[in-house]
Amino acid sequence: MDEHQQRLTSYLAAFIDELVGNGVDEVVISPGSRSTPLALLFTHHPGVKTYINVDERSAAFFGLGIAKAKKKPVAILCTSGTAAANYYPAVIEARYAKVPLIVLTADRPHELREVGAPQAINQLDLYGRHVKWSVDMALPESSPGILQYAKASAARGAGLSLSAPAGPVHFNFPIREPLIPSLDEELFSNTRSEKRVVGGVRGLSSEMRDNLISVLREKQKGLIICGPGLDPAAINSIMDFAEHHGLPIFADPLSQLRSGDHSKVNVIEAYDAFLKIEEVKKVFRPELIIRFGAMPVSKPLTLFLKGLSDVPYWVVSGGEEWQDPIAKATDFIYCDEKLFCMDLKTGSANKESGWLQQWKSINDIARNILQTGDQPWNEGKAVKQLIEQLPDGASIFASNSMPIRDIDTFFFNREGGVSVHANRGANGIDGVVSTALGMSTGNTPMYLLIGDLAFFHDLNGLLVAKKYGLDINIVVMNNNGGGIFSFLPQASDGTYFEELFGTPMDLDFSSAAAFYGAHYSLVREESEFSDALKNAEQHEGIKIIEVLTNREENVANHRKLWNFVSQEIAGKLKGNAL
Amino acid sequence: MDEHQQRLTSYLAAFIDELVGNGVDEVVISPGSRSTPLALLFTHHPGVKTYINVDERSAAFFGLGIAKAKKKPVAILCTSGTAAANYYPAVIEARYAKVPLIVLTADRPHELREVGAPQAINQLDLYGRHVKWSVDMALPESSPGILQYAKASAARGAGLSLSAPAGPVHFNFPIREPLIPSLDEELFSNTRSEKRVVGGVRGLSSEMRDNLISVLREKQKGLIICGPGLDPAAINSIMDFAEHHGLPIFADPLSQLRSGDHSKVNVIEAYDAFLKIEEVKKVFRPELIIRFGAMPVSKPLTLFLKGLSDVPYWVVSGGEEWQDPIAKATDFIYCDEKLFCMDLKTGSANKESGWLQQWKSINDIARNILQTGDQPWNEGKAVKQLIEQLPDGASIFASNSMPIRDIDTFFFNREGGVSVHANRGANGIDGVVSTALGMSTGNTPMYLLIGDLAFFHDLNGLLVAKKYGLDINIVVMNNNGGGIFSFLPQASDGTYFEELFGTPMDLDFSSAAAFYGAHYSLVREESEFSDALKNAEQHEGIKIIEVLTNREENVANHRKLWNFVSQEIAGKLKGNAL
Repeated sequence: MDEHQQRLTSYLAAFIDELVGNGVDEVVISPGSRSTPLALLFTHHPGVKTYINVDERSAAFFGLGIAKAKKKPVAILCTSGTAAANYYPAVIEARYAKVPLIVLTADRPHELREVGAPQAINQLDLYGRHVKWSVDMALPESSPGILQYAKASAARGAGLSLSAPAGPVHFNFPIREPLIPSLDEELFSNTRSEKRVVGGVRGLSSEMRDNLISVLREKQKGLIICGPGLDPAAINSIMDFAEHHGLPIFADPLSQLRSGDHSKVNVIEAYDAFLKIEEVKKVFRPELIIRFGAMPVSKPLTLFLKGLSDVPYWVVSGGEEWQDPIAKATDFIYCDEKLFCMDLKTGSANKESGWLQQWKSINDIARNILQTGDQPWNEGKAVKQLIEQLPDGASIFASNSMPIRDIDTFFFNREGGVSVHANRGANGIDGVVSTALGMSTGNTPMYLLIGDLAFFHDLNGLLVAKKYGLDINIVVMNNNGGGIFSFLPQASDGTYFEELFGTPMDLDFSSAAAFYGAHYSLVREESEFSDALKNAEQHEGIKIIEVLTNREENVANHRKLWNFVSQEIAGKLKGNAL
Repeated sequence: MDEHQQRLTSYLAAFIDELVGNGVDEVVISPGSRSTPLALLFTHHPGVKTYINVDERSAAFFGLGIAKAKKKPVAILCTSGTAAANYYPAVIEARYAKVPLIVLTADRPHELREVGAPQAINQLDLYGRHVKWSVDMALPESSPGILQYAKASAARGAGLSLSAPAGPVHFNFPIREPLIPSLDEELFSNTRSEKRVVGGVRGLSSEMRDNLISVLREKQKGLIICGPGLDPAAINSIMDFAEHHGLPIFADPLSQLRSGDHSKVNVIEAYDAFLKIEEVKKVFRPELIIRFGAMPVSKPLTLFLKGLSDVPYWVVSGGEEWQDPIAKATDFIYCDEKLFCMDLKTGSANKESGWLQQWKSINDIARNILQTGDQPWNEGKAVKQLIEQLPDGASIFASNSMPIRDIDTFFFNREGGVSVHANRGANGIDGVVSTALGMSTGNTPMYLLIGDLAFFHDLNGLLVAKKYGLDINIVVMNNNGGGIFSFLPQASDGTYFEELFGTPMDLDFSSAAAFYGAHYSLVREESEFSDALKNAEQHEGIKIIEVLTNREENVANHRKLWNFVSQEIAGKLKGNAL
């Protein structure tokens, strides 16, 4: 081992070993030359699970999916140049969805920067404001001080990626040729970390608490809103808090409150349907809003909140965020959600008030119609059927655009634990397949609900599933284009609509299935769907169920169902039958 | 038309109209909601050609390809969020390859920024240091002053994208709902621009010229190197300059000097083969190097230049660049290449010196062996055959990694104009299919030579070809993985090699062809290739010719051929037969 190889090996091994010691034990590698020493050392580390994913855009979303499923930082590694730029969409999603991600890019050494060297771009701050920390690492050296620096950087990055709000951290590694480390010696310490970060949680001082409790006492008609991204460890405390104060919880499907072992007595899930009704919004006026997590998907809920005035609106989050798209929040409470609920589960209880009961009644009516109402076969009905057939313990990943909205409508409270996921950081339709596949490594039966556009966008993501035999059931709603646009004002004036927004692709996904060795079935009508789902469960690997639907009918059917809910509830309200 | 719609319409129409007036008359649109008014107004403009491309990564490379083919700025338009981040790889390629690109991203208005609004990310300076200019535009207004500002920004951006060195410019447009402009009125001025940029070119002062001429007189054994990206308008002047001074030109295939109507008397094209020979490098010692364009692809040429000492090395470029990866350049001459050559075609001519003749003799031997030598069927031979069969007037786009290197070896001087292209800004293997398709809109027969990894990476790019019936012949060298790594030191120590670098994907591209409605043929042996090429020419649309090759054999065959060249030339040098 020459001096160069010795420096290269000890420096990068120290960094990797400390990363692993701090819990970063899965890495998604995209092949390349400059990243060779890092790739080899990760692969050589006995405590690391590696995945190879040749398309860096998919690779980054795949890493994001693993991190989401396992709630730990995951590393992604690529070579220099535009390879690293392909990570950008997933890095941004990780930032906004608060997912810990360790982004490792190999770079040319300083003397080859900005001089026209091949595959060399300016990689300093490559991800701009979208990472929590970006470090241009020193060139490899092997003095004790520099090895400490490498270890400290790894521990610090891993810790930072996890501290609230969690997010991506970027390390750029300049590396000189030759790029081959020595794998002969004892390089790793069996994942015993030298340094670690213990991230404390924020609580309320007694003065803060007393202030908040006095408001709670005064404003008895409170409403809890649980959005995507709230801390899963807080769920039971939120339930206890809500029960104690007799508060209804409007729970977004991504809050994970609609399903699981916890009590769901206070959980209201059909608000998207009944908050479309003007009478409801007039009659039910909350005096206090308390939100955990991001804003829910539901547009009617957003409009309802927007219509309130002079109502205290608390946004509780563990990190210093400002999540208030409708500018209605009055108090930003930076406090761990669980501690907040435990601290405020005190004072006079409110259990017997009619407030909660009224919401539950109206919710029951809406849910009952959505659940049992007579509907023609369409996307909504298919989603409802899919959810009903999901086995306990399954995960369902919903693409953005229509799928997450249909899940919001048709995912009702259930006992068996089914977790619901989506990329709601930046709500992109990119990387959805890869993120779901990353999550599928968490060993729960995985279902992906996705439209044809988003499925097409990340078809490349399927290669990793083929390579590693990952198991996933993909339901593709093929309405031949951008279905959601048919719900927007763009559709009413037809000029250029089909060309710019409908964007029919006329793709037959059976050949894509063949390309990736997937099991494929086509669903043309209602009777075929249930069997197709059951059939997919009998197979292993990638299962694609393509459901042919129609954009115009879909809009009409959705609107019909919502109208029916409106009429029923408006009628009961008029007759004082609630 | 209400006030909002009036502001929205007049402001965005003014911007677009001025862009068009400044030559930006093609736009690649990726569907989205926030970008609706820009998309509608572009589509409505009578002077604009629009393309719809749903995957933003491919869309941006497609736009880059159009700009490369037509040597004019092309606009790309997408919605807010990660959609815009998908542009990043192509934006970076445009920066380093000096391609004018107008990047238009729609954004939420200021009150919806950084507050957790859906599909809203921080888009300010989204592309960091990789654009020449990034503007966060004002919100739509319709006062005369603001319409002037919109027009000035458009003209300035278009001008800046073209001025040396050309590159990408980014406009971020915050837009409020409702997003529908009025298309009823007279909005456009028939593409008469109000403002325009006239970019001057840099010349030499007489003092500078005299200095350079005196060096030219003193150092008679000069060598001209023409790399990728030199100004095509300078080619004839470079030829005249070289002829006048009796200087050989080492011409990279991407310099466009190896083919076309100009004289090729001084053009040496087989240097990659003969500069592998130590004896050649010892015997032929240039006294002066003059380079136009970026560093050529050839590694032996790079090593040859690196081995020179105390040799003046001029790098001539029209913009202020520092393209010197081997740190051997002595003079950076910021001057238009054509003006430089015209100014310095003076002083004593050097036509009869043996210097040029020696290089030509050795070049003839090397080319002759490469051209006629007996080779087993392999990737190199296939590339040679492909080039021989290219019709005059065709364009060939070479992917990075092995294809561009094989083209460097086997593309010999020819009369009929065949232009050679590649993405050599950042040398990525991403976006290659889309860039070639973008170039195919330039109406020359288009051939793409690509490996299986790069082809897979940008398969999505084919959708635009299907949609618009673009015509392209794609030769996929399928060696089942990353062929170039077999040439690198990583291959010699086999540990983890196949897993990390070989990355076999075991893909059968016939199903991918079916998915995109492409004409497909499989070539397993030599006898099938020529017919497959001829057959492809008989069809329209996407034609995929998959050539199955073997990585190990390919390395062995390449090395064998190079050895043969070495032996022949080394022998002649020893016998003084040159």
